[in-house]
Amino acid sequence: MTFNILLFTDFETLDVFGPVEIFGKLENSEIRYFSEKGGAVSNKDGIKIDTEKLEMLSDSDILFIPGGMGTRTEVNNHGFLQQVKDIAERSNFVLTVCTGSALLAKTGLLDGKKATSNKRSFDWVKSCSGEVEWIEQARWVTDGKYYTSSGVSAGIDMALGFVADRLGIEEARRIAFRIEYVWQEDSKQDDFWKQ
Amino acid sequence: MTFNILLFTDFETLDVFGPVEIFGKLENSEIRYFSEKGGAVSNKDGIKIDTEKLEMLSDSDILFIPGGMGTRTEVNNHGFLQQVKDIAERSNFVLTVCTGSALLAKTGLLDGKKATSNKRSFDWVKSCSGEVEWIEQARWVTDGKYYTSSGVSAGIDMALGFVADRLGIEEARRIAFRIEYVWQEDSKQDDFWKQ
Repeated sequence: MTFNILLFTDFETLDVFGPVEIFGKLENSEIRYFSEKGGAVSNKDGIKIDTEKLEMLSDSDILFIPGGMGTRTEVNNHGFLQQVKDIAERSNFVLTVCTGSALLAKTGLLDGKKATSNKRSFDWVKSCSGEVEWIEQARWVTDGKYYTSSGVSAGIDMALGFVADRLGIEEARRIAFRIEYVWQEDSKQDDFWKQ
Repeated sequence: MTFNILLFTDFETLDVFGPVEIFGKLENSEIRYFSEKGGAVSNKDGIKIDTEKLEMLSDSDILFIPGGMGTRTEVNNHGFLQQVKDIAERSNFVLTVCTGSALLAKTGLLDGKKATSNKRSFDWVKSCSGEVEWIEQARWVTDGKYYTSSGVSAGIDMALGFVADRLGIEEARRIAFRIEYVWQEDSKQDDFWKQ
């Protein structure tokens, strides 16, 4: 499996690197990092990470879109949204964490589909698209090839859920055990809803 | 608070970026990345991150040392260990995750102190120093200015525990809630011991 991680300025740290920790534990997985313009992408946690240019990605196995404050800017970046739409359509699976679902929703590809996002940003995310069937109480939501998760650390649960769907729950449990992570296996169990 | 993150080739992704996610949520926190030689440091998850040279760090508020396969090499890198020892002595606090505690143990600074590490690598970690009082059943262990944690995701619990010790438990709970993370608040509660 090849995971293509889409970065932008002010991505949320754990949105990206929680799932990456899981993906990296799969045998023969490859992880690549892309951004609109390529080169170093930074965020408020002082991270500066090297990326490839998104247009170099001709087709994609798994596209991964994190959230973070940067999404507030990127939802208005129409050139970038068109690129995201193109590559999402050519991906076998598309996974988003937190407000990354707002970015994906803006492309129209979630229209008529179930999706979720961070509880603390839910009103803003909903305002990005009225065509999506937003599910508020969920750790993560699957609809066809689209996986969307709640806030930040929920991305780790979703990543393990994705592994379980592809390779069986024992493989997901093996990885969670190896990294000493208490996996919330039930995608509908959401401790952060309506608190 | 300034967090100085020490990186080396093949650091464990989530060891670093779980705690960084927490530290970055503190008001006025600064996060910097260092490595022995400076420049890009990469790992098996395709991450290439920009760092400063460790010798540029004259004194340190909080020093943070992750684990990962890279520690197996670095415990034999005597020049690096001497540098780690020097800066750890000049730090107000030193935090390690997973096999990062083996690296710190090799400097001798944990001699006679309580510490823990990843359950899956415990025998190897213990073999790095017989002078440390290794605690097997613990999510994380505090001894004076030294905080050591179990495997990978336990680093997030420890980071929140560190925040609680410095700024109060409500601040730690606020951050956990914001990132939708189910924090194991009890450092002694270890689901991964003897499994």
